[in-house]
Amino acid sequence: MFWVDGLECGYYDRPTLAGHVSGQLAAVTVTIAFWEDTLESMDAIVKWHELARQNSDLVVIARSGRDIIEAGEAGKTAIVLGAQNSTPINDRIGFVELLHDMGLLVMQLTYNTQNAIGGSCYDQNDNGLTRFGGNVIREMNRVGMLIDLSHVGERTGRDAIAASEVPVAVTHANPRSLYEHPRNKSDRLLKELTEAGGMLGLAAYNNISGPYGESLATWCEMVARAVELIGIDSVGIGTDLSQNAPPSHRVWMRKGRWTQDEGVGATLPGVTPPDLWLKSTTQFPAVAEGLATAGFSADEVDKIMGKNWLRLYERVFAGN
Amino acid sequence: MFWVDGLECGYYDRPTLAGHVSGQLAAVTVTIAFWEDTLESMDAIVKWHELARQNSDLVVIARSGRDIIEAGEAGKTAIVLGAQNSTPINDRIGFVELLHDMGLLVMQLTYNTQNAIGGSCYDQNDNGLTRFGGNVIREMNRVGMLIDLSHVGERTGRDAIAASEVPVAVTHANPRSLYEHPRNKSDRLLKELTEAGGMLGLAAYNNISGPYGESLATWCEMVARAVELIGIDSVGIGTDLSQNAPPSHRVWMRKGRWTQDEGVGATLPGVTPPDLWLKSTTQFPAVAEGLATAGFSADEVDKIMGKNWLRLYERVFAGN
Repeated sequence: MFWVDGLECGYYDRPTLAGHVSGQLAAVTVTIAFWEDTLESMDAIVKWHELARQNSDLVVIARSGRDIIEAGEAGKTAIVLGAQNSTPINDRIGFVELLHDMGLLVMQLTYNTQNAIGGSCYDQNDNGLTRFGGNVIREMNRVGMLIDLSHVGERTGRDAIAASEVPVAVTHANPRSLYEHPRNKSDRLLKELTEAGGMLGLAAYNNISGPYGESLATWCEMVARAVELIGIDSVGIGTDLSQNAPPSHRVWMRKGRWTQDEGVGATLPGVTPPDLWLKSTTQFPAVAEGLATAGFSADEVDKIMGKNWLRLYERVFAGN
Repeated sequence: MFWVDGLECGYYDRPTLAGHVSGQLAAVTVTIAFWEDTLESMDAIVKWHELARQNSDLVVIARSGRDIIEAGEAGKTAIVLGAQNSTPINDRIGFVELLHDMGLLVMQLTYNTQNAIGGSCYDQNDNGLTRFGGNVIREMNRVGMLIDLSHVGERTGRDAIAASEVPVAVTHANPRSLYEHPRNKSDRLLKELTEAGGMLGLAAYNNISGPYGESLATWCEMVARAVELIGIDSVGIGTDLSQNAPPSHRVWMRKGRWTQDEGVGATLPGVTPPDLWLKSTTQFPAVAEGLATAGFSADEVDKIMGKNWLRLYERVFAGN
């Protein structure tokens, strides 16, 4: 059993990591940067090294697909270091390799604002992938760093899918045809993504799940619809779970350094999001049961719960 | 034949790297930082990646002792990335591991000024290794980064030798009992260094060689005296050669960011240094002949020319 959570945020401590293990997760991709630059991202990696050393009975930091399999076999959780923005590379093409050397295995091209690589899903316009962005993608392919398009704009996302020589991922979003939201992905993008071997991690995050976010049962219904849309081999889970995060963390995520406005949110205007049905990764066994109840076979449940992620990770992390 | 130059500075291009190969060097430790901070050091590593990719028929960047042996067997030169200061870690203990992840295998604790780790050979006083310095040494031991004491002060150097759990090196200096200079090392320090398994890379740099720096023959005489002093297994070569360096490089090396005085030099007041007998690493075969002429056996020449370095590198780079 190799269950994977393709995207989490939050603050980690021993109980949270123990939760990953009791949730039977072989791997969790965590967020070391939203707006953090190179030095700040390195500080975040150092904190993960410390946490992993202090909890070496529970977790290891993954450097490869092999590390995830070994962690799963040993009853541990492999921590995959990921960034939700390309700020860790300080707009330097050569830093892609250096960040990879330090263990960064997943990087989103843009977070909530346009950058030197391309456009974000929240900006008015998206001019597509830049020349620099094309070079970053080639370099990420070469060193073995997964390209994440979750918060990336439609045009840049489609350009990135076309430019990448290895499959890419939307690690935490939902199909826009199931719930209309700027963060969710068009059927056209999802078709191009999956035809190129890429995959979609369905998010539990209530802001982008709409009515499907009400309960485990409704969320599993969304999984079933997504599988109808893009196929059983292209769907995984990227909860977007944010455990232990203080309010200041949410402000930083949204405000970063690009606005003075603390009111900027990922919630649609006037909407108060309901509580998340998913509170912790300890619920992953219940998710597996929920998927079975929704009609998936054991083999299909395995694919959604982690096998699809593992296949993609192994392919991409091997480099090009 | 595994010849090694334990320390070089300078600017590298294809002819210089081809010179390493024709000089039959299995490894050269280069300087990526004198005063450069983390980001500047990463920029320097990126430049080495580019240079190594463009000249992959000549060089590889070493990550281990094994890489050096494989380079030597393939008729290439392994580039060992080293720093002449601890500025690359930005006074962060956790960055030792991250710099090592990026390929930094050798780091001098201080350059020409006191820092958070300890005292330099040029400052009036040396208070010895600090608490932070002790932690840095333990971390360097653990990850497999060679500790270099060449420009380090006497007291800090001796403290570091005592603190380190694996052998350390003076990569480029000469015995002070052969030529009195603040950069050269006392017999007492050399005794403690070598008793702990460490070694001394003798420098060709004329400022610290005195009369021994006049010619290959006089320099080989210094090698013979050094071997009498500390034994055949503790001596190597660290030329301190600086090829292609423009005058601005020398100013940066000496002035860094610690003084407004461009006149600060490593030359003793009033002394104009003679030309260096060593112009390029292509002369390494001539050095081997010079050592044989000075009376060393073939086996002894091998040890001085690189086998001692290789043994130390393999031990230290394996980590603790």
